[in-house]
Amino acid sequence: MLFYDYYRSSAAYRVRIALEIKRISVERRFVHLLRGEQRLAAFLEKNPQGLVPALELDDGTVLTQSLAIIDYLETLQPNPRLVPADPVLAARVRAAALAIACDTHPLGNLRVISYLQETLGQSERVALAWRRHWVRSGLDAVEALIRPSPFCFTATPTIADLCLAPQLFYAERFGVTLETYPKIGAVAAACAEHPAFRAAHPAAQPDAAEAAPGP
Amino acid sequence: MLFYDYYRSSAAYRVRIALEIKRISVERRFVHLLRGEQRLAAFLEKNPQGLVPALELDDGTVLTQSLAIIDYLETLQPNPRLVPADPVLAARVRAAALAIACDTHPLGNLRVISYLQETLGQSERVALAWRRHWVRSGLDAVEALIRPSPFCFTATPTIADLCLAPQLFYAERFGVTLETYPKIGAVAAACAEHPAFRAAHPAAQPDAAEAAPGP
Repeated sequence: MLFYDYYRSSAAYRVRIALEIKRISVERRFVHLLRGEQRLAAFLEKNPQGLVPALELDDGTVLTQSLAIIDYLETLQPNPRLVPADPVLAARVRAAALAIACDTHPLGNLRVISYLQETLGQSERVALAWRRHWVRSGLDAVEALIRPSPFCFTATPTIADLCLAPQLFYAERFGVTLETYPKIGAVAAACAEHPAFRAAHPAAQPDAAEAAPGP
Repeated sequence: MLFYDYYRSSAAYRVRIALEIKRISVERRFVHLLRGEQRLAAFLEKNPQGLVPALELDDGTVLTQSLAIIDYLETLQPNPRLVPADPVLAARVRAAALAIACDTHPLGNLRVISYLQETLGQSERVALAWRRHWVRSGLDAVEALIRPSPFCFTATPTIADLCLAPQLFYAERFGVTLETYPKIGAVAAACAEHPAFRAAHPAAQPDAAEAAPGP
């Protein structure tokens, strides 16, 4: 399988953690978002949304959207589980993951920040306040939803943790600290110790080394 | 089970369709978003995110996030299926649903429009252009991803359709037409004929009648 990746994409980072936890090996292709490689025809043929991550199967089918890809990996390699078997616990785990994937992450995405700055002519200061506002709003929600043990809901990571850790990397980049989020802080510490989260971290990726500084 | 609903919430509308398709009966509570009832302490105790929909189980557990609730209903009442059994098809269905639920819907939500107008002082005209921009961007993605037959991917509705129909209701409210989206137009016609989609439509809800006009 071919995995289309970018070291600093939160959504790609979620899938990298899943691949590490499930020990599924893929061949990687790097799509440099700041250089606009996601808008090249060759990539749009793979994913018309022009977003990473994408997973190309051996028959050429391309799967998109990080949470859909992770659910696919879960059927391909069910252990270790990333969604608990109990239906109510599964729903709570999915809700925390979606509180980040739907209500937090998309608002601070590159394309939204570009619209704010380029189309609406907003300053970098306004864009930074926007980023922080939506991250805090999302972390407020997650803090209320989770019960660390030590991962968001369970003793081993679930998709809630796979969404939370990349969002915390983003939060740190833009100066949102975790003092007021004791439960999230506990989960962050557990993730920081876990080998799959360490291997999937943006700073550990081959495309991080050659990247230009910037958002 | 108690279902916390608001007639014009796209996310609640998705769950209403699922409840109709699966013939699961719930007792309903209406949370009037424009009157700010989602910010009352009594509701925040149920869902700290202050969003609808929410589903309260008989033991008092409250499930949140529309797609997590729908996955729970799928385990509670597996037929008719809303996610196909085939893993690759399931991933494609989930990707189309998430292209709406993550990349489209949250950008045009009430709280984001309020931030644009109230915090950033943007005009109603700018807010309308913003709404239309992100809806078109989402519909462009969905048009490329689906293969109507006549629903997004299959002969019966899936979660992709459950996300698409409410987004089309939103698109119409804000003047985005479907001329340039022939595949989406075909799905819209199939949904408009389907009894579950008709029963779940905002105009058919009891709380629509007493609602004040407005966004």
